[in-house]
Amino acid sequence: MRGKITPFFLLFFSVIFFFAHPHPLDPLTPSEISSIRRIIRSSPFFSSKPLAFHYVGLDEPDKLAVLSWQSNPSAAPLPLLRAFVILRSGGRTHEISVDLTNSSVASHRLHTGHGYPMFTVAELAAVSSLPFNYTPFVESVKKRGVELKNVICTAFAAGWHGNAKQGRRVAKVQCFVAGETVNLYMRPLEGITMAVDLEATEIINYVDRLVVPVPAAAGTDYRASRQMPPFGPRAKPVAVAQPQGKGFAIDGCVVRWANWEFHMGFDVWAGLVISAASVVGPGEDSGVRRSVLYRAFVSEVFVPYMDPSEEWYYKVFFDGGEYGLGPYTASLETMIDCPANAEFMDGYYATGDGSPVKVSRAFCVFERYAGDTSWRHTETLIPGEVVTEAREEVSLVVRTVTTSANYDYVFDWEFKTSGSIKISAALTGTLEVRATDYTNADQISGEQYGTLVAPNTIGVLHDHFITYHLDLDVAGPPNSFVKARFRPARTGGGPRKSYWTVAAETARTEADARVKVSAGPPAELLVVNPAAKTKLGNAAGYRLIPGAAVATSLLSDDDYPQIRASFTRKQLWVTPYNKSEKWVSGLYVDQSRGDDNLAAWSMRNRAIENTDIVLWYTIGFRHIPCQEDFPVMPMLAGGFELRPFNFFETNPLIKTVPFSKG
Amino acid sequence: MRGKITPFFLLFFSVIFFFAHPHPLDPLTPSEISSIRRIIRSSPFFSSKPLAFHYVGLDEPDKLAVLSWQSNPSAAPLPLLRAFVILRSGGRTHEISVDLTNSSVASHRLHTGHGYPMFTVAELAAVSSLPFNYTPFVESVKKRGVELKNVICTAFAAGWHGNAKQGRRVAKVQCFVAGETVNLYMRPLEGITMAVDLEATEIINYVDRLVVPVPAAAGTDYRASRQMPPFGPRAKPVAVAQPQGKGFAIDGCVVRWANWEFHMGFDVWAGLVISAASVVGPGEDSGVRRSVLYRAFVSEVFVPYMDPSEEWYYKVFFDGGEYGLGPYTASLETMIDCPANAEFMDGYYATGDGSPVKVSRAFCVFERYAGDTSWRHTETLIPGEVVTEAREEVSLVVRTVTTSANYDYVFDWEFKTSGSIKISAALTGTLEVRATDYTNADQISGEQYGTLVAPNTIGVLHDHFITYHLDLDVAGPPNSFVKARFRPARTGGGPRKSYWTVAAETARTEADARVKVSAGPPAELLVVNPAAKTKLGNAAGYRLIPGAAVATSLLSDDDYPQIRASFTRKQLWVTPYNKSEKWVSGLYVDQSRGDDNLAAWSMRNRAIENTDIVLWYTIGFRHIPCQEDFPVMPMLAGGFELRPFNFFETNPLIKTVPFSKG
Repeated sequence: MRGKITPFFLLFFSVIFFFAHPHPLDPLTPSEISSIRRIIRSSPFFSSKPLAFHYVGLDEPDKLAVLSWQSNPSAAPLPLLRAFVILRSGGRTHEISVDLTNSSVASHRLHTGHGYPMFTVAELAAVSSLPFNYTPFVESVKKRGVELKNVICTAFAAGWHGNAKQGRRVAKVQCFVAGETVNLYMRPLEGITMAVDLEATEIINYVDRLVVPVPAAAGTDYRASRQMPPFGPRAKPVAVAQPQGKGFAIDGCVVRWANWEFHMGFDVWAGLVISAASVVGPGEDSGVRRSVLYRAFVSEVFVPYMDPSEEWYYKVFFDGGEYGLGPYTASLETMIDCPANAEFMDGYYATGDGSPVKVSRAFCVFERYAGDTSWRHTETLIPGEVVTEAREEVSLVVRTVTTSANYDYVFDWEFKTSGSIKISAALTGTLEVRATDYTNADQISGEQYGTLVAPNTIGVLHDHFITYHLDLDVAGPPNSFVKARFRPARTGGGPRKSYWTVAAETARTEADARVKVSAGPPAELLVVNPAAKTKLGNAAGYRLIPGAAVATSLLSDDDYPQIRASFTRKQLWVTPYNKSEKWVSGLYVDQSRGDDNLAAWSMRNRAIENTDIVLWYTIGFRHIPCQEDFPVMPMLAGGFELRPFNFFETNPLIKTVPFSKG
Repeated sequence: MRGKITPFFLLFFSVIFFFAHPHPLDPLTPSEISSIRRIIRSSPFFSSKPLAFHYVGLDEPDKLAVLSWQSNPSAAPLPLLRAFVILRSGGRTHEISVDLTNSSVASHRLHTGHGYPMFTVAELAAVSSLPFNYTPFVESVKKRGVELKNVICTAFAAGWHGNAKQGRRVAKVQCFVAGETVNLYMRPLEGITMAVDLEATEIINYVDRLVVPVPAAAGTDYRASRQMPPFGPRAKPVAVAQPQGKGFAIDGCVVRWANWEFHMGFDVWAGLVISAASVVGPGEDSGVRRSVLYRAFVSEVFVPYMDPSEEWYYKVFFDGGEYGLGPYTASLETMIDCPANAEFMDGYYATGDGSPVKVSRAFCVFERYAGDTSWRHTETLIPGEVVTEAREEVSLVVRTVTTSANYDYVFDWEFKTSGSIKISAALTGTLEVRATDYTNADQISGEQYGTLVAPNTIGVLHDHFITYHLDLDVAGPPNSFVKARFRPARTGGGPRKSYWTVAAETARTEADARVKVSAGPPAELLVVNPAAKTKLGNAAGYRLIPGAAVATSLLSDDDYPQIRASFTRKQLWVTPYNKSEKWVSGLYVDQSRGDDNLAAWSMRNRAIENTDIVLWYTIGFRHIPCQEDFPVMPMLAGGFELRPFNFFETNPLIKTVPFSKG
């Protein structure tokens, strides 16, 4: 059945026919995913065994081969197309490289280190249904006066908490009550802990430790259809239109807009991947397209909760490495997630059985005008005239949304004609709450690890750390990381006693480039290409400007979640480019032990000067929930900007014709 | 002549006729400004003397009287209308309170402390023309091969640099070359220093210390009409329209929109003043309008340059207190500064001779939709359905732009239906540059106090500190400031070893409430009303969330500019409400000595718990210029958010009807 080419795939082939030059960084197509499944299934080693596909993604071609192809796509051959696959079979973890060009298994090795690959959607669904046939659980539900038909269970990673021997592939299952509301996360069945074996699909531990009320359904449903008057505050709609059409074109996975060109791909782990972003300047910079980013994506979303009690201590989520951002990418909708002038792109990933699944409208792309200017000046000193000059700010936004269970993350990449890229993550969705006896803040005594956000409802304290992999190639791969420190200085005399100056320190090794941004803004953070000088003699560079959300982890160094996410102690790290270092929390995050993460790699203290380097930047939100976060949380955004610094000869927007003149 | 009522004023009276209830915080009208002039001119003390009006503004009525009026505008009488005026006459500084209700001078005192009031536009213009008739200057211009007709001079504050005796009212005059460009700031006549006496209108010191080339005009003009192909990057325009009309109404100075109501005023010092901002929630909060901000405005813009040399050491600008943001407020234009759906309001201030001047379109107000949602969630766990729910984010933006000589500041106040207010300042305009012999970075040796941004052009290192006066009245005046510190904690045992918790510290006195945000994000910064509890028992509060731009001053404590701006050492201060403490840098900023500024007031260490308090927050940009800042700088924004924290019973946006349902 699976090998049969369905009409859907026929349609796909007819579409791909029009792509003159598929890009070497294109994500795997549904037909390629099917081919991978077929190639592995037909290999002698796996032909007769049960197996599960835990990761199927593009095995990135050698970077030099991609750059060579990019420099002359019509002449250079496309690099060999390979896929990287992680399988579970026979109780073991297999790493397979599939050669799609030659339809063969190129390599196969066993993973013998710590940790397990990301869960499949199917295995989490399977264990989530176990409680309904488990008598102690059915009794627990009855004891709480809840109807079993309204109960919904879901599975979470169990983590690693110090056991020396690698455990089985286990997960925790927690249950909630829906029924009169779709907001099940506001109604936990508190006090019950279940551990399940993911491969045996059975409950291996069950504890019903305490009974607290299930918070009421009233007031939790967020659907418009369920709201009663008086209704809430309302602005008038603002409609957007593009009378001259859209300014961008999507050609396969390549987006071209204004002075930018970049590639968008989909990966089951990262969701959206931005590649090969390059920009051209006007005037003296005209016609010269130069690279900015080779590859950039969200590498991990680490969310530790701060309740160490029996039912909560394990709630320390790695949404990327444990679950994958891809399968939980929302299908975006016009006027819900993206404005009317947006265009959409689909994504594809492989299910646990290796079949392709489509995520419809996984990304949107739109031109944004928020009523701002990109620059302005009024000059009143010229005799006889007042000069007011400005350029409207229209930017290009690429957006994807991942719903990691209760939380929704809106990931935006905003490209500006100035050369800037603004990267942001915004949190919304629902809290993860603990049910409690308390109905009023006055009743509370002792540590609750959270705040009362509704009757019987504690919003548990937690953090969100979103780590970006940023392979900057500023005017090409050989880059250096420079901390331009602000150094207070004294004058030798004269009316002024002090000033500050800049002491630029080029990081020689990885240790030089670990920066805790929130320990004070000691420096401007620059990536420069020492060999690419402007006509004026300055090295071409980009600044990383931290924005809101600069929390770092407060967990102890010896605590297991912190050992696993030790990279969250500082916001910024720099590593030499290494194709295998893509996932900040390591390749096997479920039950990981911190021996294969960014902090571990960085301990090698490799040279990073004037070479191909990768920046890692973590946005950190520390979240004390409040009543306004109930029953759904208003958007809270953080992020950073990559801004040109002597990359162009002058402000590239000077020569932009204003719309009014156009 | 001046007493005559012109047709312009007749028109104004006909407009004011329609205001049923003028607001006690309304700014002075042109006719009131004229009346003030007449009342003072006709008082026996001033009738025969030359005098100059340095500050004319509303003498804010007693806050309790305003609150009493607000609670019942139709019953309570409007508080007495008074104006506060600072005059210079007979070589002395006079503070006058004018009773406009009774057309009399209510009080008159002499200022005998340090410092002088802000400059008048006229006196700066007068001294700026002095060099053209000053032979040594004409010679200096000739020596540089520049045509005198292309020279433009402008006057800057001279500051205070340690002299014990109060000096005369002096300023420095610096000159630039326009001619083939309107971008005169890129073409300084370097090496010439002039000091002028503002009241004698004469040059009192002239030094031509060194000759360096005037940077070329080519490439400096930013006007679209002067650009030659190849043109720069260009997006397609995005047009905004409001098919259902605008969602806000302006009634006099009061704006009503969605769940917000606030008052906008204009002041010659601050420019835009937001007052009496209050918000109503839906559902349980419905019908209850509660205050958030009593009065908020930009109190100072402090811009110290870091070149201590003879020609530059004094460049330490207090754009508010020395010059006033009001007179330099730009007349905003549709599609240049504000989108097509904006409405505009005018402002008025008094010139040096006391006459009213109109600033056309000093503010704009518009509804913004940037393609975002205010919240969203996708729920996939409900059997048989995928729930995706969201609300579009439309906010209300109030904008004003001040051009402080070369720099343009865009000040935005963005009101959100969630109850948040996002306050931002964005920098654009042109750099202040020093001419130099250098044409390439390779030639540079030794400290330049800046960076080469164009041939012969050094962008001098500097900071921008923008201090906001924020009189929050969260659910009424009695508020407390709470630092909710994040405290790392150890567990006593169990699988988890650590977590963090919250230790809330209520600031008892001013010393407890000085916060250096950039020294780490140690705390959530909250203003709460201890007496206003939610039904759940939480104290109503608002958080201040710092965004980008968290620099603090790096000047030495004993340096004169730092003594004057000592409040720039920390971002956040809290004082008890005191009507006289409006201007963070003191009332007399020209030649001030730091004895009457926020840091000085705060030294009294007054009680600030459960009382009417004022927050002061400083946005700080540290600016290393780069080539992209030449010849005009792309917008660079920073700011902060005031966000409700247990102010509403629940997320106020849940009950908002989505546009698609409306």
